[in-house]
This record gives sequence, structure tokens and C-alpha cells, in this order.
Amino acid sequence: MLQPNIETFIGCEASYSDSRIVLYGAPFDSTTSFRPGARFGPSAMRHESFGLETYSPYQDLDLTECAVFDSGDLELCFGNPEQALHDIESRAGKILRDGKIPLLLGGEHLVTLGAVRAAAKKYPNLHIIHFDAHADLRDHYLGAKLSHACVIRRCWDLLGDGRIHQFVIRSGEQEEFQFAKAHTDFHPFDFEGLEHTISVLRKQNAPIYFTIDLDCLDPSVFPGTGTPEAGGVSFLQLLKALRMVCTANVVGADLNELAPSLDHSGVSTAAACKVLRELLIALDTKVK
Amino acid sequence: MLQPNIETFIGCEASYSDSRIVLYGAPFDSTTSFRPGARFGPSAMRHESFGLETYSPYQDLDLTECAVFDSGDLELCFGNPEQALHDIESRAGKILRDGKIPLLLGGEHLVTLGAVRAAAKKYPNLHIIHFDAHADLRDHYLGAKLSHACVIRRCWDLLGDGRIHQFVIRSGEQEEFQFAKAHTDFHPFDFEGLEHTISVLRKQNAPIYFTIDLDCLDPSVFPGTGTPEAGGVSFLQLLKALRMVCTANVVGADLNELAPSLDHSGVSTAAACKVLRELLIALDTKVK
Amino acid sequence: MLQPNIETFIGCEASYSDSRIVLYGAPFDSTTSFRPGARFGPSAMRHESFGLETYSPYQDLDLTECAVFDSGDLELCFGNPEQALHDIESRAGKILRDGKIPLLLGGEHLVTLGAVRAAAKKYPNLHIIHFDAHADLRDHYLGAKLSHACVIRRCWDLLGDGRIHQFVIRSGEQEEFQFAKAHTDFHPFDFEGLEHTISVLRKQNAPIYFTIDLDCLDPSVFPGTGTPEAGGVSFLQLLKALRMVCTANVVGADLNELAPSLDHSGVSTAAACKVLRELLIALDTKVK
Amino acid sequence: MLQPNIETFIGCEASYSDSRIVLYGAPFDSTTSFRPGARFGPSAMRHESFGLETYSPYQDLDLTECAVFDSGDLELCFGNPEQALHDIESRAGKILRDGKIPLLLGGEHLVTLGAVRAAAKKYPNLHIIHFDAHADLRDHYLGAKLSHACVIRRCWDLLGDGRIHQFVIRSGEQEEFQFAKAHTDFHPFDFEGLEHTISVLRKQNAPIYFTIDLDCLDPSVFPGTGTPEAGGVSFLQLLKALRMVCTANVVGADLNELAPSLDHSGVSTAAACKVLRELLIALDTKVK
Amino acid sequence: MLQPNIETFIGCEASYSDSRIVLYGAPFDSTTSFRPGARFGPSAMRHESFGLETYSPYQDLDLTECAVFDSGDLELCFGNPEQALHDIESRAGKILRDGKIPLLLGGEHLVTLGAVRAAAKKYPNLHIIHFDAHADLRDHYLGAKLSHACVIRRCWDLLGDGRIHQFVIRSGEQEEFQFAKAHTDFHPFDFEGLEHTISVLRKQNAPIYFTIDLDCLDPSVFPGTGTPEAGGVSFLQLLKALRMVCTANVVGADLNELAPSLDHSGVSTAAACKVLRELLIALDTKVK
Amino acid sequence: MLQPNIETFIGCEASYSDSRIVLYGAPFDSTTSFRPGARFGPSAMRHESFGLETYSPYQDLDLTECAVFDSGDLELCFGNPEQALHDIESRAGKILRDGKIPLLLGGEHLVTLGAVRAAAKKYPNLHIIHFDAHADLRDHYLGAKLSHACVIRRCWDLLGDGRIHQFVIRSGEQEEFQFAKAHTDFHPFDFEGLEHTISVLRKQNAPIYFTIDLDCLDPSVFPGTGTPEAGGVSFLQLLKALRMVCTANVVGADLNELAPSLDHSGVSTAAACKVLRELLIALDTKVK
Repeated sequence: MLQPNIETFIGCEASYSDSRIVLYGAPFDSTTSFRPGARFGPSAMRHESFGLETYSPYQDLDLTECAVFDSGDLELCFGNPEQALHDIESRAGKILRDGKIPLLLGGEHLVTLGAVRAAAKKYPNLHIIHFDAHADLRDHYLGAKLSHACVIRRCWDLLGDGRIHQFVIRSGEQEEFQFAKAHTDFHPFDFEGLEHTISVLRKQNAPIYFTIDLDCLDPSVFPGTGTPEAGGVSFLQLLKALRMVCTANVVGADLNELAPSLDHSGVSTAAACKVLRELLIALDTKVK
Repeated sequence: MLQPNIETFIGCEASYSDSRIVLYGAPFDSTTSFRPGARFGPSAMRHESFGLETYSPYQDLDLTECAVFDSGDLELCFGNPEQALHDIESRAGKILRDGKIPLLLGGEHLVTLGAVRAAAKKYPNLHIIHFDAHADLRDHYLGAKLSHACVIRRCWDLLGDGRIHQFVIRSGEQEEFQFAKAHTDFHPFDFEGLEHTISVLRKQNAPIYFTIDLDCLDPSVFPGTGTPEAGGVSFLQLLKALRMVCTANVVGADLNELAPSLDHSGVSTAAACKVLRELLIALDTKVK
Repeated sequence: MLQPNIETFIGCEASYSDSRIVLYGAPFDSTTSFRPGARFGPSAMRHESFGLETYSPYQDLDLTECAVFDSGDLELCFGNPEQALHDIESRAGKILRDGKIPLLLGGEHLVTLGAVRAAAKKYPNLHIIHFDAHADLRDHYLGAKLSHACVIRRCWDLLGDGRIHQFVIRSGEQEEFQFAKAHTDFHPFDFEGLEHTISVLRKQNAPIYFTIDLDCLDPSVFPGTGTPEAGGVSFLQLLKALRMVCTANVVGADLNELAPSLDHSGVSTAAACKVLRELLIALDTKVK
Repeated sequence: MLQPNIETFIGCEASYSDSRIVLYGAPFDSTTSFRPGARFGPSAMRHESFGLETYSPYQDLDLTECAVFDSGDLELCFGNPEQALHDIESRAGKILRDGKIPLLLGGEHLVTLGAVRAAAKKYPNLHIIHFDAHADLRDHYLGAKLSHACVIRRCWDLLGDGRIHQFVIRSGEQEEFQFAKAHTDFHPFDFEGLEHTISVLRKQNAPIYFTIDLDCLDPSVFPGTGTPEAGGVSFLQLLKALRMVCTANVVGADLNELAPSLDHSGVSTAAACKVLRELLIALDTKVK
Repeated sequence: MLQPNIETFIGCEASYSDSRIVLYGAPFDSTTSFRPGARFGPSAMRHESFGLETYSPYQDLDLTECAVFDSGDLELCFGNPEQALHDIESRAGKILRDGKIPLLLGGEHLVTLGAVRAAAKKYPNLHIIHFDAHADLRDHYLGAKLSHACVIRRCWDLLGDGRIHQFVIRSGEQEEFQFAKAHTDFHPFDFEGLEHTISVLRKQNAPIYFTIDLDCLDPSVFPGTGTPEAGGVSFLQLLKALRMVCTANVVGADLNELAPSLDHSGVSTAAACKVLRELLIALDTKVK
Repeated sequence: MLQPNIETFIGCEASYSDSRIVLYGAPFDSTTSFRPGARFGPSAMRHESFGLETYSPYQDLDLTECAVFDSGDLELCFGNPEQALHDIESRAGKILRDGKIPLLLGGEHLVTLGAVRAAAKKYPNLHIIHFDAHADLRDHYLGAKLSHACVIRRCWDLLGDGRIHQFVIRSGEQEEFQFAKAHTDFHPFDFEGLEHTISVLRKQNAPIYFTIDLDCLDPSVFPGTGTPEAGGVSFLQLLKALRMVCTANVVGADLNELAPSLDHSGVSTAAACKVLRELLIALDTKVK
């Protein structure tokens, strides 16, 4: 009997009930102000992952030994950010209620807000670890409160001072940098201070939502993104940093802003796949 | 004294007060459901027009002898279709009140709704001539009423039966084709019937809003668009048809759905520029 | 309970047992002599089909009302054509034994041989209708008997004179054209003679394997293929021809030679998807 | 004993002394005003020709039976048009003196002037058949007399009224079209009148220089060119027209304006190769 | 009253009279010997700069607080280097006479010669700081004295020994490297020695023309250039170096050799925009 | 007398008999499992090398002073790996018998096996230095023993334990890493240990076959390859390492896995050309 065509991220073949981590995609980029295309990120990662090995020589572990379920992409309404966030929050909420870690594949960075709303409902003392080239701290963007450029500001509305820890930020308006200095744990340009932040959060066993905007990587490594910002971190620096974060109590996570059609060489999608593999292995190692 | 850098569509150098036609761009594509990028259409047309001649051998007239003003692009809020439509309606309204023809460069096709609202306010008996590969007659798309896939349906909400004349349609849901047969003057696949439609409208001196979705062209001629549909009309067929439409009383118009980055050869942008040149000359010849 | 991510060609959602037509992909292009990439054809068609409507305005029918099952892609061994052909023959054989029509998505054209072997086993009086830019009639290519350039010659080895009907051929060696004139029902350049051929085959109720190399289309319509040959047929000519073929007794079919990465505009994949939709609807209409 | 790597256009392997036609490339595009890249045309044609069959089903003849020598590309000085033209004239002159037909591969269209100077020296009563989208009749371009936009005007300086026969022209300044109507045998848009022109020239046995700007082709067929102009002729129309021209007394020829890097699909280079094959066979058939 | 469409580099909105720095573009690449396209550099930078923030976190300053006027692009004659240099010299001369810093956007590197001629006229004791992958010290290139490959040699003709300070050079002919060792202050491969050079020039308050060929950057960071040379400096190294140079008495500057169409990802243009922002802020900080 | 068009890698113009090193290309990629295209590597390197200087500032030597002959590409049968390996072995054998160093340009990495077979025949105590992102140590791949993923395993079949020295490996199956630890001199991630390995081999004067899979480079430097793996070495690290290897007794070498069409910027081909220039100079310096 022939089977229908199932397409998951490589090595993510646990059943939902057996899984500890659940992938879900949010193919949404309606508020992207410069170059759209992040909507195609999750499916490209799934599709190109067949060129990836499941084994990580960095962690000497194999993704096939982790318990990951890939629930596919949400069907989101372009042009209606509030509805899209509602659908994301609902999916993340279900996964959290079932005691699993939701791992969101964006899409533009605004999608993070849906997942953070769900996580903050379950964990009112939630912290956010934020890797990004951009501060994303504008109060509004051309009048819109729900924009990729405002997403961390909206998270701050929910969580308040001292809960958001930002790294590798190297672009934004002057006001955003001033806001960051006043209200977030702010580390521009690189990962300096990450080790200290994580050791503090580990002591508190604080629940952490971990959001990675892939444009934290240098554009030489990751050109396929809407707003590439020269001067980012290297792939190996990111791997090291994410493994460090995963030693703490991560309760939800996301990878955002791969826009695959902006990089015809395929290098960006391949790098994103590898970051996801390393993140899944590191998260699963911690929770299993 | 050095002058700042002014960039207009080639040959459109009348002052606003002297002009009979006014260009304005709507770089918006938030509701595009498949491949975005139409936001870059208007600036690409302006930018690449310097490779175009202003003289039309088809009409034996020169664009520099027409009275066209290029007012640049609106700054629209991505992710908020209602606000964007409001801003477009407002710009179109001003141009109409000043007795000129507004010519909108999209952007995705939804932008047409803003301009049609303004035109229908001034001309309650407005007709629409619609060239497109897609019927755009859905009542809603994933719950959204304001979507590129619904734009002509929203125009029908305003104008009712018998006012919308559709040509070259070759893609849509079964329900859209059924709706079209019941409620619009529907001509699938090609321009058959256009001559008759125009002769009737000329007799009535009916005010016409003329909306051209460039994907009415065959993808061989115009690959740079979000949803290319094989089986369209040729460039020369489109030129002939638009000159025919411009013999009637056109009070507003638009060109939509050029997504320049989907066609690295530049052929699509060059074709769109030429369609605009021919449209401007044909419109201006009629009104001057 | 969340479901895993199933990806099929749009509208092909029958169960295997209910289906009348079964899709299967052969992502193989090892023998391609010029530009490879057809291996990515089947997955690109599935992936991009979500931009397609299921309704055909040409046939006024909807793909969702057909009974098609998509069994996904075979996992084929690159560099070993004989093994790949064996796996294809085995899949086609099972579908034929279950009384369904196998519809193969290539891949390079050599994959047809596997399906033809299976069909000829069940139907010894099999005929082949062949649409292609290339004659594919070489006896060997650089010493290899199993090459995309030899596939119809290998079919002739199986079926003999008078069984192969070739259309739109416009490229080949002088010897291939001479062979064709002697041994096949040969119609270079276009579809002239197709109506007559089909009417003869209908009278005989001859079982037909229908193989479409998409490079029969003009490169303006379908640039994304390994060896584009100027001077081909239009999209509408192909649609008309394939509907004509489907009035006869087609027992197996394939679509080949989409190399999606050779056409960044996506136009070729979109055209291939539409050809597949029209072919499925036409086949299903005949058999249901 | 191993041989060094020789690269010629496919099937052009006669020795210089045996040859009747001699290819030479002019990789020059310094005066291109819009998008450069035609400098890479000749080497791309040589390089990609290995994907072409030597047999022409249109003429039922094989290029390997013609006597063509490929002398490779001239090494031209960018930024110095007069020097480049001198080098081209010198190469063309030698080939003409040796009693062979020089066939020049451009490069931008200005290169034609070098070859025409050499031909006009040998044949003072030279005529020019000119296929092009552009009139190329400007007297100067931003002050330069030697520009691709002026090349036919410079030829007219040499040859005067009644000697230049222009076809398929569909772009230019108003002045150029007026000049053409007064001074050349002018056929805008298509090949109408070609048959008559050729029959007159055949009666006179007039020596003809035949210059083909490949942008006479529609951009759907040939997007890879600096200034694509919608509304051109089809590939089959061009083949028919060039075979007609080759029944007259062609003493020199060129193919220009392929800019291969503007068309990543490779379709334009493949089409150019096929035009060259057909041109070589038609020319050789006449002279052998 | 609607305004015409003004397009400047982002944040450069001072009036000419108020400005301290004046941008002007030289879209010229006629002498480029390998891959042309730098002509599109200045307009691409202007056009894509709307994706850039005006705030520099590196210098904690905002471009909107600087006094920069963007005078647009010169209209230069392709194929005539001497005329183009004359026009550039004339524009640079006017800006210098008005007591402002001219900042030239190339274009190929030859354009620097026009600006240097103007600067050397005003400042006979001019020094040049030159960042580049290539020595550009050939005496002639295929017979041409005015070529991108000779531009620094031509500057040396004007200024003589000891005035030219070259950094990051990693490509050239053996003779160029020997010439450099004898006649320029030569620092191959990286910025070693820059600090010392600048401190000496500061002590002398020497007037400096600062020319940056963006291919000094590693191609991983800046692939969009005609002749990419592996082994270059990083973006952060370049930022640090240019800020160091701007502490001295820079009287004119340029950024060259962005060829945007060679990098479809847009990363190169984005990097060039950021280098320009940082350069403008650093220059303005020094002079205001 | 005009000469035919000879195309060699720049500066490789010795006669075969005078040469010490002989280039030969193997344009083969039939077993590539992910993205093919390496077949175009050798011709792209030859073709693009005209943009390269022959002088190496790193070694202060000029390629024109080395004695290199370029014998062009083998004509290999796609789809038949064993035949292709036989043809490669035969060419390498002849060059070795003539006392020269064969330098193979791939193609996919499987081609190395042909050259290693020839070298092991002449030098039974052959060692292999292997730079690569991938271990290439699978015993079979989807049933095939002759696959790019198995090539070093096949070499191990020939040579046994202790003869293969692997560097920069960062991708593979868990089993491959375990095999490597047991059977090869294994250095994952970077060049650590290379100096020691080379000093041991130099003491033994061991004959070395040196195989460089260019994907050892970081994808930021070299995106144009079938399976890019983030986290590789830099260009300067590779240059330093290859010069170190060339101080030992290298008897044969290859450069593999450039897939030029995957990198439209041309940066990968340019980098590969430079690696080849540096390798040729370093090899020739040792042997002359």
C-alpha cells in the first residue's frame, strides 16, 4: 500500500505524543518593511534539509535520537497581523499545555510575539534571550504597533524591565538604542556578557523564551535575509552561544527571517538548517 | 548652484499645475498570498525608464509632449491594508478634485480599491475595465475581505452588476467564474468583445476606471510577477487593446503587479515601462 | 492532536484505494549530458502547486473532483541508471496491477523507460505518444545505451516499428531524423497529424503510454529545462494537444525535464504545474 | 602526445585555408549606454555550443559539412572605440582579401562599423541588410559619434542613401525615425518588404553586408540583451528571414548584442547559437 | 500641492549652501576590463539606502545631524574616458571652490582621477590614501593610459613619489608590485602601518584625498564587484580604518566599484551603503 | 595565417614535453546526491581565469614562469561512473609515466578515485592528504559503491590504515566519524595537526596524492558548491595549508567540487582560480 508524501525537517520523525519538542512554521511576512520573502523560510528549511546530515560533529549526537515532531506550517492570513498572531499563540499554547517545547520557524520576526504571549501566559516570570542584528524596539512603525520592527517592544509591554536580554544588536534608530540602555539587558555587536547572563538565569531557574533572528549572523554567512547587516557574528560563534543558552531552562524558541529566494546559492538555507539541527539537539539534550 | 536628485518616470516632467495626468506609486504588497515583491514595482519602473525612448513608434507621438507629473510613491504601512487604502484614496481624490487623471502604479492589485473608491465618489456611474489573468472576485481570502484576491469583488460591492468589464481572465476558483458569469461583463482568455464594450461605453460617455494587472500578459513576455499564468496575451495585443480603451472616457487608471526582483533579466520591468509610456500617450492624446 | 506535514500536489488528496490516477516522482538526472537539475522537478511542482488554482477554466472542471493520489518521490540511486529504472518499473508495475493509471513526474527523460517497461508488460500492444523537442533516438551516447538521448530508441527496442508517434521534434543528429523517418510515426516541429493519429488509435482502442518532455514547449514559455530549443509550441497548443490525446485510451503517462533552478522567475514550474493539472483532469474525465 | 585545449564554435573545425567562412569575435561593449555585458557574447556562444546539435532539421544540412574556421576573439581595448574599430577592420580586411566571408560575433553593435569599413573598401557598392529593434541612426550620443546608438548612421556616412535596408525596428528617437524615412529603406516592426528588397538586390547581384542585432527577436525568446524591446519577431520568423537574405550575395555578416549574464536560464545563448548555426549553413550553402 | 519625486541617499537632505559634504555620482565603467556593472553603483546605493538606519551605533551619531547634500549623478559619455574625467573634474572643482568636501560615488576606479585632478589643483601638496585589492599601477592597459588598471599610476604622474599610501593591495602584475615598492608607501594585504601613516600626515596637516575601492573588502562581505579578490579585510576592519583616516585632513573622497547586479542577494549594496554612512559621519564630525 | 582558438588556464602555456605539471579536467557529477553542477567547474575555471593575475603576491612568483600544460577536459560518459573512472585513471597514468605531476580539475569528488588508482599503481606506498568538509567515508550510498560520498572509503580500500590524512572535516554520518577515528589520520574542523603530519611525511619522503575538495572553504568564501557546509576555513588558511603540503613530495593532486552556476556572483570561480594558481606555483617551485 503506497503512502502519501510526508515532508518533515530531516530526522524529526517522532510521533506527537512521544515528542519533547514540536516544530511549527509561521509563513508570514506581511509587515516586513524592506524586502519580503521570509514567508518561504520554514518550507525551504524542510525541503532543503535532505541535504543535511542528522549527525552533529559539534555535539557528537544525532538528531534521529532526539524526540522531535514537525507539525508543518500554519495557514496564516496575509495582511492581518493580529489574526496571524492569534493563530500562532493558539498553536504554541497547545504545545505548551501538552508539556512540550514549541519551536517556531518564521517568517518575519513579528511571529515571535504570538509565541511569547503563549509562553508568558504559562510562565509569568518569563525571560527572553534575543539574538538579532536589529533592536526591534520601536514603539510603532509608520503608525503600526504590530510590525517586525516593534516586536521586542511589544514583548517588553508584556514583561517589563529586566526580562529581555539582547545580543549582537548593531542596527536601529537612536531612540531604540536609548530605550535598550534604559530597559533591557543590552549587549550590542556580539555575545559579550552572555555567559554571565546565562549563569544568573540558571541560578534562578528562570523560564526562557529563546528567539534567534538569523540576521544576527554576518551576511557573508547568511545573505538570504530581508535586511542584511554587515558586521555580524560567525556561524561558530552562534553555535557556541546557542549551546550555552540551552544549558538554561528554555521553554520555547524560534528561528526567524530566512528569506531563501534572496540567496540563490542556497548557502543561507543550508546554514539555517544546521542552526536548527544544533538547536534541536542542544534543547533535547537538556530536557531528556 | 547644484540641484538635488529628482527621479521621475522618463519624460514626465510637467509641473503639477500644468499636468493633465498625475503618476503616483503605491508600493504595497502585504496581502499577496503567493510571492510578494510588487512593492518594488513603481520605483523599478521609474529607475529603469532611463533605458526607454520617449518616442512611441506605435502612436508616432512623444511622451515629452504630454503633460504628465510624477508625484512619487506614497509611504504606506505594511501589514495594515485599510490604512494603505485610505492613503491611496486620499491621493487619488486630490488629483481628481484638481481635474486631472490619477494614474496609479502598484503594488499588488488591492491598491486599485483605494483609487476606485475615490473615482466612484466623483463619478457614481463609474465603470471599470479590468485586464487581468485572475478574476479577483473572491468574497474573502482566508478570512480577509481586503486581499488582492478579492479586489474586484470589493469594487462590485461599490458599483454593482453591469459596471465591471473583465478581459483575459484565465485563473480563479470555480465560484469566481460562476460569480463573473452572473454579475460582470466577463470575457475570459482574451480581448474578444472589447471593441463592442468600448463602443457601448463611448456612446454613453460613461466614466471609466481602467485597471491593468500586468499578469494579463503571457509570462513569456512578463515573467516578473507574483503569480504568472501561462496562456496570456501578447504585448502587441495589449497595446492595441489599451489604445482602444483610451478612446473612451477614462477618468483614472492603474498598472499593477510588476514584481521586478522575480525577473533578473529586466525584461518585465522594460515591458511595464513601455506599457506605461503607451498608456500615458494614449490617455493624454484623448484629453488634450 | 497535531498532524505531521503532508505535502502533495495541490488537490490530489484521494486515498490510494479510491484513486484512479497515481502520481509518483523520479528525481533522477544522472545521464543528463548538458545541464542537470531535472531531479528537482517533481518536488518543485508539488511545492509550488499551492500557488495554483485547482479549477481549470479550459475544461470547466476542478482537480479536487478527480481521484488522484500522490505517492511522493522514489529514492533513486544517482550514478546507477539500471537500478533507477528497475525501481521505477517496479512502482509503475504495482500501480498498473492495481488497475490505476501511473503518472510519473521526472526527472530526466530516461525515467520514461522504466514506466514503459511496466506498461508494455501489461499491454504488449502498447503505443507511445511522444511530445518532445528532441528525437531521443540515438543508439548510444558516448558508449552508454541508457541515456536520456537514447530513451525512445530503447522504447523502440521493446515495441518495434509503427508503435511510436513523435511530435514537435526539432533537434537531433541527422541519423536520428533518418531513423525516425524509417521507424516511427514522425511529426517534426509541431502537432500536425496528431488528430489523425489519435483517431486511428481510438478506433483500435490501442493502449497508449503518453510521454511529455516539457521542452516541447517554446523556451519563452518554459525556459527551465536542461536543453532549451527555440522554435517550440505554445502553452495553449500543448493544452489542446494533450486533451486530444486523453480522448484515447491512455494507460500511463509522464511529464519530464522541468529543471526548476534554471529559471529563477518560477514561470517554468508554474507552467509545468498547470500542464499537470490539465493532464490529470483530462485523464480522469476519460476514465471515471 | 596530449593536445592543448582548443575551443571553437561546435562543428567549425575547418583549417583556415580550407574555410569559406571565418568566425571572429569582438568582445567589446564600452559604449553601451544602458546595460553592458555583450562583451561576453562570443565566448558564451562558443562555450555553450557544445549543447547544440550540428544538424539543422530546418535546412536538412549539417554544420560539420560546411567549411568554417573559428579564429577566436580579438583582444580589444576597452574605453577606446576608435582603436577597437581599427582592430576589427584589420581582421575583417584580411579575411576578405583571402576570399572568405568574415562572420563577426559581437559585442555591442558598434563593432559592425569596423567590419563595414573593411567590406566597403573591397565593395564600394556595398548594401547593408540590418535586422534590429533599434534604428541606431543618432548622429551622436551624449557627444560621442562612435556609439552603439549611432552605428548605422556612421555606416550611412560611408554608403549614403538607398544602401541601407532596415527591418524590425521598433525603438528610437523621433528624429531617427524621420531620418530613416528620408534616407534608408525602412521597414519598422517586422520583415514586411524583405522578400521584395532581396529580389531587387539579387537582380543587381549587389554585395551585401548582413548585420543581425539579436534584439530584433522578441524578449520572450531572447531576454539576454542590454536593451530588450517588447514586440519583436519570433525565432522562426528570424530563421526564415535570414535564409532569404542568404540567397543573395552576402559578403560579410555579424551577430550582435547577446549579453549572456542577463539571462541566467541560458535560453538566450542557446537561441543565439542556433541562429549562428542556421546562418552559417545558409551562407555556406550559397557559396560552396 | 504635490511635490516631484526627489531621491537622495538616506538622511542627506541638507541644502547645497548649508552642506559641508557634497555627494556626486559618476556612473561610468567603460574601461572595466573584466566584468562591467559599476555604472549602476551610485543609483543602487541611493535606491537601497531606504533600508538603512541613519543612526550609527559604531559612532553613536546620526547621519541626519550631518550636513550632506546629494547632487545626483553626472551624465557621462560611455566610450570616452577623457570626456568623462573632464566632467568629473569640473564637478569636483566647483564643490572644492565652494569650500565643501566632494564625495564621489563610482563607477569604476578610473573616475577617481577626475576628482584627484581637481583636488591637486587646489592642494598641490595633496596626499592619497588608497584602499584597494588592486595596485592599479600599470602604465597602460592594452595600449590605454586611461584605464581602471592605471588610475593610481596616473595619480602618481601628478603627485610623484611619497604622496600615495596604499593599503590592502593583494593583486597585480609583478611590475606593479615592484613599482609600488619603489614609489609609493605600500602596505599589501591589510591595514598594517595605517596608524603610523595617519599620525605622520596629521602632524603635517597634509591635505588628503581618500579613495576606497570597495573590493578591498573580502568577497564574502562584498561579492558585488567586477573583480573580486579573495583574502580581503572584514567590514569591521574597514570601518575602523576609515574612522582613523577621517581624523586627518581629508579634503575629498570616493567610494568605488560596487557592481550591484553581480550580487542578487543585495548584501553588497547594503554593505556599501553602510560604509558610506560611516564615512559621511566620520568626515562630518571632523569638519563641523 | 589565423590561429584556431586555444583556451587554457591563464599562464599555463608550456608545451606538453616541457611541462612539469599537466592539468586535465573531469567534467563529471553523475553521482552527486544533492545539487549537481560540478561538471562545469573545470571549464569555468579556464574561462574565468582571464580575470586573474598570473603573479602571486603571496609567494612572490609568477605562474608564467612555471611549466604547466593544460590538456583540456576528458569527454566522460554521464551515468557510467566506472567508465569515467577508467578514463581518468588512463589520463593520469600517462602523465605519471611521462614523469609529470597530474593535476585534476573536477567535477565531483568521485573523480579523485581514478587519479588515486593511477598514482597508487606507480607509488604503492602512496599517502593521501585530504582537505574537505565531508568525510566521504561511507561504504555505500543508496547501494552504490562508486559515489562521491564514498570516494575516500574506496581510496582506503586501496591503501589501508594510516595512509589517509583528513583535515577540516565537519560533516558526515556518525558511522563515518567513527570509521575515521579508527582508520584514518583524522583532523576534524580545521588544519590543526597538519604541520606535524607533513613533517612526518617529509621525513619518510612519502609520495603524496593531495586532494582538495573546495568545500573545505567556508561557504562565505566559496558558496558555489553542491553541499555547502557552514563553519569552514578561510581562504588565507587554505593558502597557508596548501603551501605547507607542497613542501612534501606531492606526486599528484586535484581540486574538486566547484559548481559555478550555484554562485551567480562569480566569487567562487574566482577563488577557485586563485587556489589553483597558488597550488601550481607551490608545486612547481618544489619540483623545478
